[in-house]
Amino acid sequence: MPLGEIIQRAMSPISTGLMDRENMLIKRLTRIVPSIREGHGQLAVPLGTGDDAAVLRPSGKTDWVLSCDSFLEGVHFIDGVHPPESVGYKSLARAVSDLAAMGAQPRYFLLALALPSAKTRGWLDQFARGMARAARELQVRLVGGDISKTQRVTIGITVLGEIARGNALTRAGGRAGDLLYVSGKLGAAQLGLEIVLRGLSRRRSLKKYLHPHLYPRIPLELGESLAHHKIPSAMMDISDGLSTDLARLCAASGAGARLRAAQIPTVRVPALLERKGVTPLELALHGGDDYGLLFTVPRKSLSRLRRIPSAIPVTCIGKMTREQKIVLVRADGRASPLVSKGWNPFSR
Amino acid sequence: MPLGEIIQRAMSPISTGLMDRENMLIKRLTRIVPSIREGHGQLAVPLGTGDDAAVLRPSGKTDWVLSCDSFLEGVHFIDGVHPPESVGYKSLARAVSDLAAMGAQPRYFLLALALPSAKTRGWLDQFARGMARAARELQVRLVGGDISKTQRVTIGITVLGEIARGNALTRAGGRAGDLLYVSGKLGAAQLGLEIVLRGLSRRRSLKKYLHPHLYPRIPLELGESLAHHKIPSAMMDISDGLSTDLARLCAASGAGARLRAAQIPTVRVPALLERKGVTPLELALHGGDDYGLLFTVPRKSLSRLRRIPSAIPVTCIGKMTREQKIVLVRADGRASPLVSKGWNPFSR
Repeated sequence: MPLGEIIQRAMSPISTGLMDRENMLIKRLTRIVPSIREGHGQLAVPLGTGDDAAVLRPSGKTDWVLSCDSFLEGVHFIDGVHPPESVGYKSLARAVSDLAAMGAQPRYFLLALALPSAKTRGWLDQFARGMARAARELQVRLVGGDISKTQRVTIGITVLGEIARGNALTRAGGRAGDLLYVSGKLGAAQLGLEIVLRGLSRRRSLKKYLHPHLYPRIPLELGESLAHHKIPSAMMDISDGLSTDLARLCAASGAGARLRAAQIPTVRVPALLERKGVTPLELALHGGDDYGLLFTVPRKSLSRLRRIPSAIPVTCIGKMTREQKIVLVRADGRASPLVSKGWNPFSR
Repeated sequence: MPLGEIIQRAMSPISTGLMDRENMLIKRLTRIVPSIREGHGQLAVPLGTGDDAAVLRPSGKTDWVLSCDSFLEGVHFIDGVHPPESVGYKSLARAVSDLAAMGAQPRYFLLALALPSAKTRGWLDQFARGMARAARELQVRLVGGDISKTQRVTIGITVLGEIARGNALTRAGGRAGDLLYVSGKLGAAQLGLEIVLRGLSRRRSLKKYLHPHLYPRIPLELGESLAHHKIPSAMMDISDGLSTDLARLCAASGAGARLRAAQIPTVRVPALLERKGVTPLELALHGGDDYGLLFTVPRKSLSRLRRIPSAIPVTCIGKMTREQKIVLVRADGRASPLVSKGWNPFSR
């Protein structure tokens, strides 16, 4: 049932009392999450939550970028382990990451939420607070959605962003000789996940390592800036791990890549996990959920890259090659093919 | 993982073999469902499935209408009871219904699909064929999506349509004195559901009653035509049942309604179900899933309503009133308040 319908019912003298509890929970949700409701008068959105659909008024001067993403209990998060704030935050952040990857500016989102009755009180409140924080940080507003009842929480997010016509960055433009860059450090989110999966998340000394896994930071301004200055020839976000996502970029670009292991920005692994065989390089190569940007830069654009201001560092990790394979050069000079070992739902 | 990524991987010499099976199933899906892939050259969509997000190029001359909908195993369909073709067809059709309800012309859709490995073969094929048929009939094309693995099938559909600026029909315009109309017959889908829930769906004599439940027909052209000629003052689709949806329209319009039971277009109930207490009027008042249109018409627009050609009949079932309550007048003249008893996920 559309969120807005329930809000309207709640405010209506005809309300039959049937849905009082649902009215309450949805009113709570839309009070917490930045939303656009009917009749708010903003020109770009003649109609937000509160009808069968949202009505948007494009200027005709920009392209619109549209993506959807699922976030599912038992697949993307574990009930009782991942805090509801993180579920709300991360489900929206990772959807917005697909817009950052195109260089677009996020504008609106739709939320299709299904949850069990037991989660309609405190859990929903905390979920909404996490989502609200992501919405404020990423500057998106809720314009519509749908709510159902299920046994396991199911979250569907659709995001809509804007970009100057023709400026969207695809994965298909990388050419042999272009330099390969990543933003931030790689493997931080996977390190957090390893701690969670090993049941170590309550260890005081390890708490600080959980944050990138629970609340990933989306390099939105960097993506917009790179697209605005037309610096990369190709760009995408690293959601499933460098080894998997680089293979996609190479496939789309019809090129290969040569990575230098020593140049890849890795994270420090606490001794306890290092002893269990967790290494910074493996985390960086195959760990997902970082949502850093992976992009290729033609040599002629390097000086422009150096001039753009960014709060997040970017690092050259190798270059694109003509030969359509991905090679990893280790610190000792040994070169070997890099096999995709990132996140793949159906391989497990 | 975005569908397009997997397609690209499948076509890539860098493919590692890790995802061969997934490549195959997604290639099958996008081969069956009408899709827009990267580089197809259509101006409105510079980029379809095959990157982080779809890129759309609005003309700036129309409004865009956006809605999302979930379709969940165990909630909206029952595994082993509902054929996969119906799941594919209906999940898309009911999402598109929200666009019909605004009078918009559907254009694109995104599919977020999660399913267990066991359903990635024959089930997915049949699902895709049902969805393809709906996509052709409703003239929408797949521009993006996402696939995950879960225990129970989870379908998220986002639909995007177009309408002349300012022509979108909301629920908020109904005024006292306007006549109240519905399209088609009410209760046909609920009758099919009653047969399914009673385990009678294999009865030869009852088969023909299942169709409206499994493959609802969306009155798309009627919705577009009504909006184009600016005939209704308010409009919505009946997805959760007349008693529930009319309460929403009245709430949004700040008005009430007086229904005449004898005028409501009902379906014939087979004797076997009639004996079990299933009545045509109860089906019509509270049965959901018909996706007919509910709209209010000012008296001055009645002559225009009569002139528009429609393959689907429209019927006046009462009128809007100043007093903010809904009253049902029975055939014998008795009047009583109508209580919302339609679909409500959290009341069960």
